[in-house]
Order: sequence, then C-alpha cells, then structure tokens
Amino acid sequence: MNHGAVERSILTPLTFIQRNAKVYNHKIAITYNQKHFTYSEFAERINYLASALRQAGLKKGERVAFFCFNTPSMLEAHFAVPLAGGVLVSINTRLAPQEVAYILNDCGAKFLFVDTELANIIRPIQNSLETVKQIINITDIEGFELIDGEDYEAFLQIGQSHPLSWIITDEMETISINYTSGTSGKPKGVMYSHRGAYLNCLGEIIETTLTSESVYLWTLPMFHCNGWCFTWAVTAIGGTHICLRKFNPANIWKLIQQHGVTHLNAAPVVLISLINHSDCPQSLEKPLTITTAGAPPSPTLIEKITKIGAKIIHVYGLTEVYGPYTVCEYQSDWNNLNSENRAQLMARQGVPYISADGLRVVDLYMNDVPADGKTMGEVVMRGNMVMTGYHNDSEATERAFRGGWFHSGDWLCCMKEKKDTPIRSKERN
Amino acid sequence: MNHGAVERSILTPLTFIQRNAKVYNHKIAITYNQKHFTYSEFAERINYLASALRQAGLKKGERVAFFCFNTPSMLEAHFAVPLAGGVLVSINTRLAPQEVAYILNDCGAKFLFVDTELANIIRPIQNSLETVKQIINITDIEGFELIDGEDYEAFLQIGQSHPLSWIITDEMETISINYTSGTSGKPKGVMYSHRGAYLNCLGEIIETTLTSESVYLWTLPMFHCNGWCFTWAVTAIGGTHICLRKFNPANIWKLIQQHGVTHLNAAPVVLISLINHSDCPQSLEKPLTITTAGAPPSPTLIEKITKIGAKIIHVYGLTEVYGPYTVCEYQSDWNNLNSENRAQLMARQGVPYISADGLRVVDLYMNDVPADGKTMGEVVMRGNMVMTGYHNDSEATERAFRGGWFHSGDWLCCMKEKKDTPIRSKERN
Repeated sequence: MNHGAVERSILTPLTFIQRNAKVYNHKIAITYNQKHFTYSEFAERINYLASALRQAGLKKGERVAFFCFNTPSMLEAHFAVPLAGGVLVSINTRLAPQEVAYILNDCGAKFLFVDTELANIIRPIQNSLETVKQIINITDIEGFELIDGEDYEAFLQIGQSHPLSWIITDEMETISINYTSGTSGKPKGVMYSHRGAYLNCLGEIIETTLTSESVYLWTLPMFHCNGWCFTWAVTAIGGTHICLRKFNPANIWKLIQQHGVTHLNAAPVVLISLINHSDCPQSLEKPLTITTAGAPPSPTLIEKITKIGAKIIHVYGLTEVYGPYTVCEYQSDWNNLNSENRAQLMARQGVPYISADGLRVVDLYMNDVPADGKTMGEVVMRGNMVMTGYHNDSEATERAFRGGWFHSGDWLCCMKEKKDTPIRSKERN
Repeated sequence: MNHGAVERSILTPLTFIQRNAKVYNHKIAITYNQKHFTYSEFAERINYLASALRQAGLKKGERVAFFCFNTPSMLEAHFAVPLAGGVLVSINTRLAPQEVAYILNDCGAKFLFVDTELANIIRPIQNSLETVKQIINITDIEGFELIDGEDYEAFLQIGQSHPLSWIITDEMETISINYTSGTSGKPKGVMYSHRGAYLNCLGEIIETTLTSESVYLWTLPMFHCNGWCFTWAVTAIGGTHICLRKFNPANIWKLIQQHGVTHLNAAPVVLISLINHSDCPQSLEKPLTITTAGAPPSPTLIEKITKIGAKIIHVYGLTEVYGPYTVCEYQSDWNNLNSENRAQLMARQGVPYISADGLRVVDLYMNDVPADGKTMGEVVMRGNMVMTGYHNDSEATERAFRGGWFHSGDWLCCMKEKKDTPIRSKERN
C-alpha cells in the first residue's frame, strides 16, 4: 500500500508495553513478594535489558534462552528480548540436563539466563553447549552457587533506561520458540510470530474477560506457551501480574486473598489440589476467573469451583497454537440446567476463540467426520493462532501442515450436535 | 511465508459472522420491534444478500450504497456487501439530494439500496446518477411511494442461503467507504480496510467491555463510521443488536428496560436529551455502559449519568480513524476523588485505544508541543486504526498523511501531565 505505515502498523506485543508505560505509568504492573514495579519501572527495566543485550552483541533474530521460574525477570524477558531484536526461548524448569542441552543447541541460543537454583542443571552440560556465548545468573533467592558469569542486575546496568527503536520489520517474524514436551521423539521448537502473539493477546483478553482492574496470579508456568500469552496479554490490558516462584496451595489461597486476585490459569490437576486444600475458602470475597486446560476438568471439579464463587473457563489447545485455541463458550440457556448437567456441558469442548480461524475434526483423508458421538477424527486448525512452523525442521513442519491445516495429533469424536451447537468431547490420543 | 494460510489468516470482520453462525446459532443476534433474528438466521440472510449481489452482477471492489436507517438490512449489508466482494458505502440519511448525488457519483456506486421513506431524496437526483445500475427499495414501514426497482426481500430471493467463499485476498483491501461531513469543501470518501475494521472490532470490544451477554442499542447511526465499527463488533462478540429506526428519548428508555440494554453509544447532545427526559429512571435496573464522543461531555452530564447507575466511557476520534481512537482510560485512583473532580478528569482526553498506535500533538513543523496547558498543537495519529486513504483523491490523502502521520485537523493543548498521565483537554478547531 501507499503511505507505508500511516495506515498499517506492525502487530507486535511490543506495542502494549510502549502504550502502558504511558497510560498506566504509576500503576503496579508486577507484584512479587514485597517488591512492586509500576508500569514505567517495568518498561524501564525492559529497556535496560534490551539495550544490554544489544550492547552485549545480540543480533537480529538470534535466540536468548531463559531458564527460570515465574519471577519478574521472566516477564521482563518477554518484552526485552524481542525489543532487542532477539527471539525468546523459555525453557521448562522440570527438564533433565541433557534435555536442556538439546534445546539450547537446537535453537542455537547465544545468551542463557539461569535462575541460580537451576545452576545445577546447567553445570554438567556447560561444556556441551555449542552456541551459548554468555551465561547470566538470576539470583532470585540466596544460597545457591552461581555459574561463572554475570549477575542479572549487573548485566542490566550495561544498558540504559530510554526507549529503544524496534528492529522488527515484518509482523510474521519470530518472537519466541517454545519447545514441545517431545513425548514421541526429540522436542520440537515451535515458532510464534509477533502477529500471532499480538492477536492471541487480544483473544485471551476477550475470552477470559481481562480488564485493567484484573489481578493475575502466575500459577501457570511462563515457560508453557509463554504462559498462554498472558505474559503479554495481562501487560496489554494494564492489569497487575502477581509473580509466583513455585506452586504451593496454601500460599496461593493467601495470595488470592491478599492481592484480590481476579484471574488465574491452571491445569485441572492443579485445581484439584487447590480446591481440596484446607485453606480453600467456603466462599470467595472477590470474583475469580479460572481458565483451565490440559485435560477436561471433571464435572465434580467444575461444581466445586463454582460453589466457592469462582467462574471456570474451560479451554483446549496445545503449544503449536499458542496455548488455548478453543473455548467451551458458555451458552446463556445453560442457566436453566441443574448444576450437574451444566457442569457436564462445561467439561466439553469447544468452539474456536474469537481470534482463531478454522477448526475441523477429520479422518485420514481430510474428510470431516460425522457428529455421531462415536466416529473418531483428528483436530486440525489453521490461521493466525497457529505457529509459523518448527524451528530448523521443515520436514516436521510440512508433515504437521499437510493438506493446508495444522494437525494436532489429538483424536476425538464429535457429539451429536444438540441444537446444532458444536460441542465436542475430547480424548487426547 | 511458507505454507500459505496455515499460520496466517486474513483479518476481516467476515470471520466473525462465519464463527458465530455456529457458536451462537440459536441466540438472538438482532431484535427489531417484534422481529428477532438468531445468529444462524442473520448469517443466512447475509448469504442471501451476498449471493444475490453477485448474481446481479457485482464484481470485486465495486461499491454498494445503502441509504437507510438503523434497521436489520443495514446490519446485513455490513457483512453481505464485503462477502459478495463489494465495498459498502453507508450514506448519511440527513443529507440533501445534491449531497447524496455527489457521494453516489464520487464512489461510483453500482447498487443503491434505499429506505422507502428516503425515496423522496433520491427521486429528484435519479437522472444525475452516473454509475448506479440498480435501485432496491427497503420497505421498512408502509406508506411511502417506491422508486422504480426491486423490493429488498424479493432481491434476496435471487440468492441462496448457503455459505459463500470469500473473494478477498489481501486484508488491506477496502471494506467500506464513509464520507466525511465535508464542512470545508466536498465530502471525502474515507476508505476502511478489512484489517483495520477487524482490529477496531477487537479494540471496541475490549475498551467498551462487550461480552456475549451484551445487548447493544443502536442510538448511534450505522452510517457514522459503520456505527464506530459496532456493526461488526457486537456481531463479533455474539451480543444482541437492538435496532432503532429513529431517535426518540421516551422510546429509548422503554427499550433499555424492555431488552435489558447493556451498551449504547451517543454524542453528548443526545445524552442530554435522554438524561433530562421525564422517563429517565432514578436508578437503572441493570448496568449500562454509555460510550460518548463528538464533543467533551460536561462534568455535569457525567455526574448525572453516573448517578442513575450508568458508566460513561469518553472517547475521541473521527471518521478517518474508524470512529473512536483515544479513550479517557479510567484510573483506579480517581475513585478517591469527589464526584465533581472525577467528572472533570473524565471529561478530558485521552490515551490511544489498546489496538491503536501512535498519537502526538504537534506544531506545524511536526514537533511535539509542550504539555503546558496552553500551547496548541494538532492531533496526529498513525497505525492500523487509520484509514487507508481518501477514495479517488490521492492529493488529499497525501496532504492528510504528510510527514508520515494522519493529520486530524483538531487542535488542542496538552495539560500539564499530572503524575505524568497524558490527559488532554480537547477543543475542536
């Protein structure tokens, strides 16, 4: 088009922190234990980290790995690495040393940031890291031995606090690579684009009803699909992140009460441990929206959660689609059902997110399977909420994208469409 | 990118009706007097109209003009015309015959749909219409003489109810042209893109907190910036449109009560007539969000509206930026102010929408003016919420886009930034 960028700006989550550093400058962006960062402080620390990375030699498109917990530096990385022009690789903290080594070498990380508690995972593989030029220690809690390398806060000081100009020129450029668990074969690096991340943020804000008053508790690991893009989405809407180093049910109920948490995301297994904990309140003081995925929540779990006054949103997705892709969109006529029948419907999936595109359930020949409650088919998806491909593995990408659709590997049957509502029962293969 | 559309779908409002025809198929999409249309009926009627237009000879990119009130056919047009491959031109119903003729000729409309009450505006100019091939009468109320031409419902029957494949291939293609009021010189045709309209929808949903439970009353004309994109946005979120042929305060209070209206948009002058009407309730039964723009609402008006239990969202924009572009983003610490001081802050502008990009206030040499509460500057904007240009007027487009920013023609001064919040006082030039 003519006139370049006047009528068309790049879709990237970087817009959000740039905007909210001004709009919500004095508002708390991040709370972590006794520490608080306002949006302008958050933006400043992002500028420090991004400029430090450039100063330390990061070039456009190079990978920066973070191997740490849900601490503020992980949030900073989600904006600073792309702002510096790099690609963020957040690594699962539960992996064994050899798995971490594989990922670091496969993505070709140039920088590695490590929480000192995880140094013992890195130390044995340090000599086999082929591309890492610099290791930076994140000392979040004391008592662990550092790896030979800079300290995070000292590293930031190489940089400066002023806004940096963006390096991104195409919204389809990669913003992050997230590795699959690799239950079959080696883990694969799933590439997210700036455009996809941006649109996912707006989708998550709308589907989980985030507002600038939202207080989001980090029960979901940020290394998991960039925290289902909530790292960017909560920042986008100007909400408050409550960071959480490790999962502990008693601590979570305390934080919910203390900070007036309005939203959290977690797998059903995590919710079960929360709801059955002795500190679980009879009734919540403030509305709480819980978004859950990973496996269908049982109707019993849904009933229990609803009973304490929380709202449950049941979603389905996987790493290749930025986390959640479909949602069990609540239908107002379910209000007339008893709680058990309602919970049964809420345990099913689902319809595509507002920001998603096509969803089909197909047989091996790409024919839609009948909605008869018994014929199994594979879930296939396409559009802006689908990864751009697997890093350095065009063969796997082509296989996953065969027939012009992303193949999830999840097989299920479609329920007979009651009143034509495409409610689906899911069984992971 | 490789793999074409698997990881990148076109951003267009057409996605929304395609999705919600399935997700909310049995839910009411449109209520108008005693008529109701579910989402699947709405989608079906859109398919009828789109296929009828193609059948009648509409080619890709050709213009289809609608000259009618806020009736269901106007909503149908917002999806059917782009689905057919055309460009929608909604014409201000308050214009004089010569102005309407100018617009129809300037945009080169091939089809013209006219509410029979407005036939008397068209009849005197019929011979001067250079490009219109067919006129279709929308008989919404009886008693007016038809123009020689087909009836709307009969025209639909040329088509069929099945989903049509899209013709759009680039999200920057034009979806609609909206004419400026043209206070200085001739009206100009402001072109909106599919991408811009899509992103605006998500922005409006987020900023005005629309949900699938929302009931939106059409007090704002749909011919005005496509109803600030709410024609598409309310459909996108699966809310219910309450159509309204003409503005009448008593009727509006009745409709709000009867349908449980949750959202409406209107200029302050309209709100004044509403709030001072004898049917205005002391206190609303259900939360109501009123989004207002066009002129700053007075603190008195804001106070009165707040008192009956409605929430006011004050936005600023113009036709060239799809309607609202900035919002007086409520800051939670304003809760501590008395209602008068709070209303004064709420009467100011503003910060860019979440989906918007840059906003500056500049002097004639594109330098930012100081925020001193007195130096005047012009509001300039850029990004996805800016038009793609003026139809058939590259000279005016270049002038408006000089220096890489869209020049609004609105001059104002920036307030001293209290706590750095960029609150601005607006005075239209």
